[in-house]
Amino acid sequence: MSVRKICVVVTARPSYSRIKTALKAIQEHPKLQLQLVVAGSALLGRYGNAVDYIESDGFKIDAKVFMVLEGENKTSMAKTTGLGVMELANTFYNLKPDAVVTIADRFETLATSIAAAYQNIPLIHIQGGEVTGNIDEKVRHANTKLADIHLVASEDAKVRVIKMGEDAQYVFNTGCPSIDIANKVKKSPELNFNPIEKYGGVGNDINWQTGYIVVMQHPVTTEYTKAKENVLSTLRVVHKLGIPAFWFWPNVDAGADGTSNGIRLYREIYKPENIRFFKNMIPEDFLRLLINSKCLVGNSSVGIRECAYLGVPVVNIGTRQQGRTRGVNVFDVSYNEDDIELAIKNRITKKSQIPSDSIYGNGNSGEKIANILADVALRFHKTISY
Amino acid sequence: MSVRKICVVVTARPSYSRIKTALKAIQEHPKLQLQLVVAGSALLGRYGNAVDYIESDGFKIDAKVFMVLEGENKTSMAKTTGLGVMELANTFYNLKPDAVVTIADRFETLATSIAAAYQNIPLIHIQGGEVTGNIDEKVRHANTKLADIHLVASEDAKVRVIKMGEDAQYVFNTGCPSIDIANKVKKSPELNFNPIEKYGGVGNDINWQTGYIVVMQHPVTTEYTKAKENVLSTLRVVHKLGIPAFWFWPNVDAGADGTSNGIRLYREIYKPENIRFFKNMIPEDFLRLLINSKCLVGNSSVGIRECAYLGVPVVNIGTRQQGRTRGVNVFDVSYNEDDIELAIKNRITKKSQIPSDSIYGNGNSGEKIANILADVALRFHKTISY
Amino acid sequence: MSVRKICVVVTARPSYSRIKTALKAIQEHPKLQLQLVVAGSALLGRYGNAVDYIESDGFKIDAKVFMVLEGENKTSMAKTTGLGVMELANTFYNLKPDAVVTIADRFETLATSIAAAYQNIPLIHIQGGEVTGNIDEKVRHANTKLADIHLVASEDAKVRVIKMGEDAQYVFNTGCPSIDIANKVKKSPELNFNPIEKYGGVGNDINWQTGYIVVMQHPVTTEYTKAKENVLSTLRVVHKLGIPAFWFWPNVDAGADGTSNGIRLYREIYKPENIRFFKNMIPEDFLRLLINSKCLVGNSSVGIRECAYLGVPVVNIGTRQQGRTRGVNVFDVSYNEDDIELAIKNRITKKSQIPSDSIYGNGNSGEKIANILADVALRFHKTISY
Amino acid sequence: MSVRKICVVVTARPSYSRIKTALKAIQEHPKLQLQLVVAGSALLGRYGNAVDYIESDGFKIDAKVFMVLEGENKTSMAKTTGLGVMELANTFYNLKPDAVVTIADRFETLATSIAAAYQNIPLIHIQGGEVTGNIDEKVRHANTKLADIHLVASEDAKVRVIKMGEDAQYVFNTGCPSIDIANKVKKSPELNFNPIEKYGGVGNDINWQTGYIVVMQHPVTTEYTKAKENVLSTLRVVHKLGIPAFWFWPNVDAGADGTSNGIRLYREIYKPENIRFFKNMIPEDFLRLLINSKCLVGNSSVGIRECAYLGVPVVNIGTRQQGRTRGVNVFDVSYNEDDIELAIKNRITKKSQIPSDSIYGNGNSGEKIANILADVALRFHKTISY
Repeated sequence: MSVRKICVVVTARPSYSRIKTALKAIQEHPKLQLQLVVAGSALLGRYGNAVDYIESDGFKIDAKVFMVLEGENKTSMAKTTGLGVMELANTFYNLKPDAVVTIADRFETLATSIAAAYQNIPLIHIQGGEVTGNIDEKVRHANTKLADIHLVASEDAKVRVIKMGEDAQYVFNTGCPSIDIANKVKKSPELNFNPIEKYGGVGNDINWQTGYIVVMQHPVTTEYTKAKENVLSTLRVVHKLGIPAFWFWPNVDAGADGTSNGIRLYREIYKPENIRFFKNMIPEDFLRLLINSKCLVGNSSVGIRECAYLGVPVVNIGTRQQGRTRGVNVFDVSYNEDDIELAIKNRITKKSQIPSDSIYGNGNSGEKIANILADVALRFHKTISY
Repeated sequence: MSVRKICVVVTARPSYSRIKTALKAIQEHPKLQLQLVVAGSALLGRYGNAVDYIESDGFKIDAKVFMVLEGENKTSMAKTTGLGVMELANTFYNLKPDAVVTIADRFETLATSIAAAYQNIPLIHIQGGEVTGNIDEKVRHANTKLADIHLVASEDAKVRVIKMGEDAQYVFNTGCPSIDIANKVKKSPELNFNPIEKYGGVGNDINWQTGYIVVMQHPVTTEYTKAKENVLSTLRVVHKLGIPAFWFWPNVDAGADGTSNGIRLYREIYKPENIRFFKNMIPEDFLRLLINSKCLVGNSSVGIRECAYLGVPVVNIGTRQQGRTRGVNVFDVSYNEDDIELAIKNRITKKSQIPSDSIYGNGNSGEKIANILADVALRFHKTISY
Repeated sequence: MSVRKICVVVTARPSYSRIKTALKAIQEHPKLQLQLVVAGSALLGRYGNAVDYIESDGFKIDAKVFMVLEGENKTSMAKTTGLGVMELANTFYNLKPDAVVTIADRFETLATSIAAAYQNIPLIHIQGGEVTGNIDEKVRHANTKLADIHLVASEDAKVRVIKMGEDAQYVFNTGCPSIDIANKVKKSPELNFNPIEKYGGVGNDINWQTGYIVVMQHPVTTEYTKAKENVLSTLRVVHKLGIPAFWFWPNVDAGADGTSNGIRLYREIYKPENIRFFKNMIPEDFLRLLINSKCLVGNSSVGIRECAYLGVPVVNIGTRQQGRTRGVNVFDVSYNEDDIELAIKNRITKKSQIPSDSIYGNGNSGEKIANILADVALRFHKTISY
Repeated sequence: MSVRKICVVVTARPSYSRIKTALKAIQEHPKLQLQLVVAGSALLGRYGNAVDYIESDGFKIDAKVFMVLEGENKTSMAKTTGLGVMELANTFYNLKPDAVVTIADRFETLATSIAAAYQNIPLIHIQGGEVTGNIDEKVRHANTKLADIHLVASEDAKVRVIKMGEDAQYVFNTGCPSIDIANKVKKSPELNFNPIEKYGGVGNDINWQTGYIVVMQHPVTTEYTKAKENVLSTLRVVHKLGIPAFWFWPNVDAGADGTSNGIRLYREIYKPENIRFFKNMIPEDFLRLLINSKCLVGNSSVGIRECAYLGVPVVNIGTRQQGRTRGVNVFDVSYNEDDIELAIKNRITKKSQIPSDSIYGNGNSGEKIANILADVALRFHKTISY
């Protein structure tokens, strides 16, 4: 029996939590061999050093690909992607995988897709078919059109991918692997670590033991110049409310420095006594922190996915998650400070009333993905279905 | 009245003939300013020096972008595209266009699309929605998903783009500008030049005055190693038939050297006395040569489009044009030599029976395109329609 | 009279202060036209936004070149340089300068040199012939061997460049343009601004009015992993001494984040009450701050050059300036904390005893450079002199 | 005993013959492990497919690096080099060699040097210290200034490298490995193969058995536009003289297509009956062909080195080898056709009078190189010696 070499490219911290259990399942599958490529911001300290977590989780990294160009503008996003195509083309040329996996919709995922598709390597796209509100939207669907096989995270997404002209027999709803971790956490939800002791972070030694919220706000690319202004609004509200808060740093994007600078500035000047700032946590700890929180505030996709399954109330700010299928746990608000304040006040009282929702999977996605990868007929040639 | 800067990126000789009349119309439109970027193989002597024709047609070139990587494999296609993204990102950053136009489905057109879309420049895709049989298929539809506005060449294509989830009010059937040139040629079809005198070429001084065929065969990327073998089959048949033939060199692709080497080899060894080889001609002369020919042989898209309008019989070999809407002028065959021979013998007798077909436009596409570019609401933000 | 187009590439904040008066003189010279390219870290906020100072000084920028690759290792230095070659090759191709100027010895200056030399554009190297102790050493002399004309900053340097096999008639000692600014400051040395009011900075509102020191410590590339440790040593000493200190952020290098993180960490934990941290100042203000200080501590080349002319005592730490011609103002120490402490204590008492030294010029370098650029015979072809 | 990993980068066909015996000796040395990187034009069919010869000689290739950019101008030389830096930085990052070897002075060798030096990998430069007349001159000496250890091919070269400021204890005269192959051929010089039967080639079946000349003419980069004109001069003379000639295709350079097109054109039109054209031969066969020839014509460095040792008369045309130490076998001429004609007529009568000359080595260079690589103290830090 020949073993399939499956090359998975992880380009950012959030992508890793969305694929981790699938990586494990691929690694353990007798008919599969994992080739793990860590690239882009996943290698960089100022975006949370995902690479360290990946290695400490016991994965062997087959190639590291540095490709992030500095620059506080959208041009650098394009150039990072161009460089990524060149670098990943080499990587695949050397690793000779039987299939390449590209994850979701971050801008640099198109680099993976092009490098694989142009070299006639079967391309598997994870988590296509969703809907959001900016460049991610274009990237995700372009990935779909370059991909040969689609592993989506919800029934909505499956329908959408098929409608786009993809052959239904190559579209599978596997749910999202991030729910696998949420599933594990949900089974024994106690907060079994002290966040400040374990992760340090900066800022005040907040009194989180009596209840806290979690904040995670990313820049939105098409509103580049507003990134700083928007994060300051949220900072002012959370500071004013005085509820103990764990605040997480954003990941890399064209506006990253806008948001980061906003946070750094506010911290310097106001030293908000109720906020503790973190770069990141291992996914399981992060979910444990969430399930024990009163509410998640910001625009992270974790609010849409994992929090639906965990039953955590979410104040989702702005347009970043626009269009994504969501559960009753999510309350959407604009960047208006009064709206955000009101929404947080409201949400933190709703914790007990939020049910668990399986729209993004049941907790066995990793395994499902590995099984499909082992059995599906690989192809690199397709035509639109209409 | 402010004038819109429309940046058109031409990356190859065949793309130029598909856009030429639109370039003219943009240039002459009072509400538009043309920014012309010539890139990729369009700059290179061994792919026909499209740049010289563009300049001799009176267009001013705003930027030349060298991006083609050498190498006889598919890796270089990927790397060329990656390099193209980086270079074109710069180009657009400096030219600051109001919209960027990417043409059709060659592999490097994705570079144009990414460089524009990631910088929030409205992207217009020309000739999406068609169907073919290899990497072009993936590239074309990925271009569609990155583009904001779609100018397609047939009703079939329009329906397909809308089905893919694009907003119908941003999808326009303009026909193909190549038909504009065909239209002009059809009005006064006489062969008013001596091909060998005007263009030289290499090989025998064939006796074309009493009737001839035209051959144009490109490599098919997903069948890389077969490119040489396939072109040799066609060479053997055309040589054996003895009909005077004008044979045109292929354009750049991963297999280009396979096909080119096949031709060069055959020429050296057999010196086929009935074949004259050309690098290329200006589009109008080429169409004039076609309308006066007995038949076009090979796998060029000219056979599908211009020849439909001109009423020229076509022997279309292999899978390259698979899926494209075609008229009664086209007869499809495999790479089998006997089939090709039979098909040519049959087609060359059918010249007078082929009607003109307007599936790809009526001869006013350039003007239509310019008018839409002047009036359409530009956007760089979209969501899928379902 | 034809005007020579002189293209100067500024890739970092410190390079700008070393060339500013020459830029002015080129701009004003009737026989010269300045083409200013700002590239690399000079464009980036986290390295001091040199571009803003350049623009506010009234220079028009002809091209901005983003080329810095993120990554906390030496690989990214190499890749930044490679990308720089590609980008600057384009830039020169488009600007068509009569000569290109590359400045000193930062790693990315080789990109400028290659992009010019390979395109047969006469290359002028500023500030070759010096001696230091790491990758800069190799880069500087490689620049010399690629350059056609050499404008050096001291007699020592001139001798050295000629010894390396360069034709003496193309080697000119112009002094360093940074001394031109120092000259202006020296003529009216009063501290005519409040540093904290004008530049903000972060940290305590230190009592600098009664005497202060200035600190500026850069990472040393070949001691990458030690960057953090080394900066912490200096921080501890300065903190312990309690003297009011203005501390300046380092510029970009492979170890930048090591040093920066060291500083950030120390600030967070110890909040040193006698230190105020700044990103940067306009060169004139910075020199004014220096001439009024008790001493400069760190490893900046400003200590070797401008401080020699200004008569400011310097504690020069470590190997970074090793080999550079220096005046009596400089006292060299290792990274040992006791040594640093003793040296600072000693130096701050020596202020009145340090004479002004003209080893790096007399204050008219900018003008000299412009005159040479206007009159020298340009060439792009040379052979070694022995 | 730990084994040193020596990474040698071969970027072109002629570089391979200059290093082959050293590769063998490294491979067989108990204290060394060879890491062989084949890059640039050495991978490309149209420059002679050096990679095939390397593999058929039994070398295992550790990495293949595609980096050649297409384009008929000097910009592409610069960009190829920039791309090379990026790609080779990756390659070295992954291979983790103890030292990197860069060969001679082709433009892209600077990419190897930068990628190694910037990553603090000890850099060994082979064949520095020579003198020639164009961009190679700058590249070679820049390589010297980036390199830590120098293995030169003649005493002249050794003196020159030391004069440039390099530490004499790191400069070794090993001779040139190409002489090792020449040595082997000289011991049994009979022409033991039929060139046309073994290598094919194109053109007439020339009558070489009764005496022949060999021609090899490369484009000279700083005379780009003249490449075609110059090769046509030589073609006309050789054609006119009527002596049977084996003509070898040039290697890649900015002007490659000028020369190649010149040759192709001349062949098509005049079909010179006394010339047979070859892409290339394995080095040993090529030297055997030379030692049995009446004379070598052109501008190849083989005429300066191997032919000195073999005692083959050379007509060296133009400036390409200007400045290189040469023996009495070489007669220099301009591009003037009359001069070339006269020189060939003269040289072909001198065969028996040319002595063997050891200026470039005695035939044991490969072994010497391996021994030095095994024993020299590796360093990546140096300062100029004056």
